[in-house]
Amino acid sequence: MWPDRRLLDLFKVEHPIIQAPMAGAMDWQLVAAVCEAGALGSLPCAMLSPVQAREQIERIRAVTNKPINVNFFCHRPPASDPARERAWREKLSGYYRELGLDPDAPFKAVNREPFDATMCELMLDVRPQVVSFHFGLPDAGLLSRLKNAGIVILSSATTVAEARWLAERGADAIIAQGYEAGGHRGMFLSDNVAAQVGTMALVPQVGDAVKVPVIAAGGITDARGIAAAMVLGAAGAQIGTAYLFSPEAKISSPHRAALKSARDDGTALTNLVTGRANALAPLRAKAEAAGSGDFSPLWAGQAAALGRELPAGELTRTLAAEAQKRLQRLANS
Amino acid sequence: MWPDRRLLDLFKVEHPIIQAPMAGAMDWQLVAAVCEAGALGSLPCAMLSPVQAREQIERIRAVTNKPINVNFFCHRPPASDPARERAWREKLSGYYRELGLDPDAPFKAVNREPFDATMCELMLDVRPQVVSFHFGLPDAGLLSRLKNAGIVILSSATTVAEARWLAERGADAIIAQGYEAGGHRGMFLSDNVAAQVGTMALVPQVGDAVKVPVIAAGGITDARGIAAAMVLGAAGAQIGTAYLFSPEAKISSPHRAALKSARDDGTALTNLVTGRANALAPLRAKAEAAGSGDFSPLWAGQAAALGRELPAGELTRTLAAEAQKRLQRLANS
Repeated sequence: MWPDRRLLDLFKVEHPIIQAPMAGAMDWQLVAAVCEAGALGSLPCAMLSPVQAREQIERIRAVTNKPINVNFFCHRPPASDPARERAWREKLSGYYRELGLDPDAPFKAVNREPFDATMCELMLDVRPQVVSFHFGLPDAGLLSRLKNAGIVILSSATTVAEARWLAERGADAIIAQGYEAGGHRGMFLSDNVAAQVGTMALVPQVGDAVKVPVIAAGGITDARGIAAAMVLGAAGAQIGTAYLFSPEAKISSPHRAALKSARDDGTALTNLVTGRANALAPLRAKAEAAGSGDFSPLWAGQAAALGRELPAGELTRTLAAEAQKRLQRLANS
Repeated sequence: MWPDRRLLDLFKVEHPIIQAPMAGAMDWQLVAAVCEAGALGSLPCAMLSPVQAREQIERIRAVTNKPINVNFFCHRPPASDPARERAWREKLSGYYRELGLDPDAPFKAVNREPFDATMCELMLDVRPQVVSFHFGLPDAGLLSRLKNAGIVILSSATTVAEARWLAERGADAIIAQGYEAGGHRGMFLSDNVAAQVGTMALVPQVGDAVKVPVIAAGGITDARGIAAAMVLGAAGAQIGTAYLFSPEAKISSPHRAALKSARDDGTALTNLVTGRANALAPLRAKAEAAGSGDFSPLWAGQAAALGRELPAGELTRTLAAEAQKRLQRLANS
């Protein structure tokens, strides 16, 4: 029924749809529901310890024996820069006072950790079908161990150059992450936020540049986007924001409310919120506790307004059926 | 053969493809070739006098009796701001000296003129099938005269809000211009360059918001993009950059050379080059005369690298045939 079976064979799934890993916005429940519905669910581990990651995977496996994707960041952790941190605190001190916080109090921010030998061991032990990376690939030694174990490797590219880089180093499929996407830009060969390529332009150019299957991501929330991605030459689509509308998503009330009133032009790309430990964390915690999203990154792609409030499994089955129907209808016109 | 016939009926053409008007980069020859090949050619008139516009239209009609689109800007012309102009000259004075130009010499820049009563008279006289606008619509009086004459009205939207605005005021079809597009952003309800919506996200959201046909623009250079646009719900596609590769395009040598080596991440959105008269004009003229594009806007969309050097008519027929084949192939998979 699907016009392209490459991802079905590679991932051993029924539908060429990947639920995007969204660290901090979901857990095992969402992944299990997506996998059980026949798509590839992705467990984000960037904010988990190895013990937590193992527990999450075990919970998924207690519910479904379908293939899963386990996702990691592989960025270079930033060096601590006390002067810069101080400057940020200074800049934000008015907001700290407004919310009754001490700008000089120490705080513990949740940081994102890159993939390492301990996580690699865990993967070799639990053997997911797929491991995906954001911000490039881990070092060659760790990557070989995963590949030698038969684990399928995915990573994201935001440019043709990044896609070529990933393909040359052994990625089995490449997520072409267009500018429309919510979440972190997976960029790793450049830090220029001014040169971001849209999905419509990126997917065919990446498709021409690499031999491995390309997965379209960015601005795809409904069946129209999935079908269009495949017409552009992608073997399938990765979908994030659409799943934030599901009851399984673990997002704050302000975030959920913002999604419900999302507009096409309401997504901004910024390098001020990076996912790194930063001085916004105490403000965010205090504001969210009071029901405000004023200091929260309200992650959403540009097609958030097309989202529907359905359980993750039902959403997956609905998107797959509608996309197949849409592709089929063209044949009959 | 096309899955959506709305534009074929509206424009009286064979293919749901519009060649984008590109003021300063083309003339009647390109338009005539596209029209004769069965798509809708667009004559850009923003930089033409009424006498020049009439002459161009007559030249097209000497070659083909197919329907044409005549395109105008309908921006509010900026007020002269000598202090600001002086500041720009000051800022650029180093470059003026480097190129042997006097930073204080007066210059005559070619400006873009908005649609007015004289041009409206001309349109009522020559009766093109379609008149398109960039930056909104002209005042209601002029618009009514065109519509009462049976002329089909098009305009571009960069957001859902702009699309609704255009549909409410009588646009017969709306070009959803995604962030990937080359050329001027058609934005008119906002001047925030940081909130630009990609084609993949914009087209379905505009399609949901208005009842008139939507034309996808931005990042579409080959048949994959045309087919994908229609799968997203667009009735057709507007294509600009692809036609800059044709021998009929009137572009500088540096521009043509830049297109041939275009990369996916080589397009930048800027509000520094606006199309308004500005202090770059003398620098550009001098540099281009010496074969340099250092001060030229090298207009190109993000999918420029997919361009092929074909005559405009052959390109049109090839794109149409390939897109139809691509859409058909899905049916047989």
